[in-house]
Amino acid sequence: MTDSRPSIGSAPAQADGVVISLDAMGGDKGPQVVVAGLEAFLAETPGARVLLHGPEQVLTPLVRKLGDRVRIVHAPGAVAMTDKPSQVMRTGKDTSMWSAVDVVRDGRAQAVVSCGNTGALMAVSMLRLRKVPGVNRPAIACLWPSRNPTRFNVMLDVGADIRADAEDLLVYALMGTSYARQGLGIARPRVGLLNVGTEEHKGRQELKDALELMQEAAPKGEFDFVGFVEGSDIPSNRVDVIVTDGFTGNVALKTGEGTATLIAGLLREALNLGPLSKIGALFSMRAPDRLRLRIDPRRVNGGVFLGLNGTVIKSHGSADATGVAAALTLAHRLATAGFAGRLAARVASAVALAQDNGTDGGATPATGVEAPQEQQR
Amino acid sequence: MTDSRPSIGSAPAQADGVVISLDAMGGDKGPQVVVAGLEAFLAETPGARVLLHGPEQVLTPLVRKLGDRVRIVHAPGAVAMTDKPSQVMRTGKDTSMWSAVDVVRDGRAQAVVSCGNTGALMAVSMLRLRKVPGVNRPAIACLWPSRNPTRFNVMLDVGADIRADAEDLLVYALMGTSYARQGLGIARPRVGLLNVGTEEHKGRQELKDALELMQEAAPKGEFDFVGFVEGSDIPSNRVDVIVTDGFTGNVALKTGEGTATLIAGLLREALNLGPLSKIGALFSMRAPDRLRLRIDPRRVNGGVFLGLNGTVIKSHGSADATGVAAALTLAHRLATAGFAGRLAARVASAVALAQDNGTDGGATPATGVEAPQEQQR
Repeated sequence: MTDSRPSIGSAPAQADGVVISLDAMGGDKGPQVVVAGLEAFLAETPGARVLLHGPEQVLTPLVRKLGDRVRIVHAPGAVAMTDKPSQVMRTGKDTSMWSAVDVVRDGRAQAVVSCGNTGALMAVSMLRLRKVPGVNRPAIACLWPSRNPTRFNVMLDVGADIRADAEDLLVYALMGTSYARQGLGIARPRVGLLNVGTEEHKGRQELKDALELMQEAAPKGEFDFVGFVEGSDIPSNRVDVIVTDGFTGNVALKTGEGTATLIAGLLREALNLGPLSKIGALFSMRAPDRLRLRIDPRRVNGGVFLGLNGTVIKSHGSADATGVAAALTLAHRLATAGFAGRLAARVASAVALAQDNGTDGGATPATGVEAPQEQQR
Repeated sequence: MTDSRPSIGSAPAQADGVVISLDAMGGDKGPQVVVAGLEAFLAETPGARVLLHGPEQVLTPLVRKLGDRVRIVHAPGAVAMTDKPSQVMRTGKDTSMWSAVDVVRDGRAQAVVSCGNTGALMAVSMLRLRKVPGVNRPAIACLWPSRNPTRFNVMLDVGADIRADAEDLLVYALMGTSYARQGLGIARPRVGLLNVGTEEHKGRQELKDALELMQEAAPKGEFDFVGFVEGSDIPSNRVDVIVTDGFTGNVALKTGEGTATLIAGLLREALNLGPLSKIGALFSMRAPDRLRLRIDPRRVNGGVFLGLNGTVIKSHGSADATGVAAALTLAHRLATAGFAGRLAARVASAVALAQDNGTDGGATPATGVEAPQEQQR
């Protein structure tokens, strides 16, 4: 597995020790597009190596020109978008998704990327990687375009579980803090709790309880807690991490995407109406391009599963090569940071401290939070 | 109260019999802006008359040039944005908001518009107007820019109540259907139930229960039920009415607004960068104008409270004159349609039929729905 040949579009480089596991079969657009994204990623990341999972006879011709930084792991089956997670858990051992998760379990790769069925990927990941001690419900975190200098905010949960109680929301705050630190390089993230108003008396009881838990946990958790935030704050620069349950988070995520799509469509129509507008559009063509670079969902492609013993990244099923490459780049960044281990240490120490303080660590890991192993990189 | 003098910007007209009640004191920008919106509304709607509530000494100089289509109703107090609804219910009798609601209760006006504190307006409206029989939780409906020919979809509840059970959601479907018919002129609205996926096995139990209730109610309720929809469908042309609880709806509404604001800001920056873009922006200036006309929240300003014995419209607190005028125009349209009575008849007949069928009408008004008094106008 040495880099004996030049890789595409880049000088030969030493392997950086990071191996990413990639499910070739998950995407709506087929393995060709996944491999095209892989090719772009390899060109940008000279040190990385990849284990590619799928049917050998399909993948071998596709990866021939990628050199020996890519190894195929044969898996004859594929998970369909319509497969039920419970079914995949029972009968999915021969699938590329299962194989891709399993090499992370075995320590042969440090992170896995799949464009496949979200529910199935979460189910297989929970089964094979197991939850980190102290985490009751794993969460999916996304990056949301924002007004912050990093250009993104972290939001979780965006769909792993439709329920979350106050303790789950606190764990989400800790995990989101870890992700903002390792994924966006924010030393002391500001955490907000999504609600229908910013007044403390508003909202559901579990949100009021979570508010108190987070206020207590913030000093030792090394985050700033800004209290309740509203939907309009999600893309703002008031906050770096937005915590909510997976039902609300999923609706918000898709509402944001739907709104962006509507506006983009109307803008295109507006620019295409009338001769003067057309001339204007020609001149200002670079402006929409700049806008697109800023909010293009393909460039922030990848929901990260948090709370498992291993880094799992779910790319959009409809991701094109740019999207797949973005997800691989994120996986590489998090793997290099030793992200999964740092997050586990943070949650574990929160639970341990809560137990030291004589409370029930499983139910209220909130009274003391410290994560000595986690430093900003 | 005859139109003896020409009104601003329009020919003299016969009163159309519709009287709108307007709270002059609710908005963030003060009564001057509310009155400027009133002036624009009167110019566009020659037959309408308005009762304007607030301190006589403040309002008299402002309305002098508006003619006798506007009558001041003196109310010395005002509800502040920070006042608690419970406090206003106890001690708010002298406020302009209370007075504005009360003239609808007394039959002196057919609809009320306020830019004030949403919680207080809902509390005062519930106390003075009372809920329609068969409605357990009133809802706030908003108009959402969409791909439909009417350019808008109806979404409810966007914040009246943070809870909703399956029966509440069914009543929301019936009320939203009425609103789409009278407010947007859609003969047979398509109703969708907001969830995290479109598969029937997904989501919370109350949503699965509500799905069944709506499937049963659709034929007699004269709406088409499209099943579960996702956040991305809210601005789509798959659906005319989106039903959800007030927590989720409020987060979605504010997330949509926040996303639109982010994109508008980034677009402005993109158009201002670089000389070529600036030339382009000059030429395509009319394109953003067209876009703004299409999605400008000021032009769809007004959440409508549904389920009360009277039409109540909550305008944005920060509404400018255009926003206030839009809310008044919507109020006039609904008042002309006899909207509150039609909606009450629709809900009442649904409950009556459920009782005829031997089920508990209060809990499950779902088994039969008919609303002979409601016709599309």
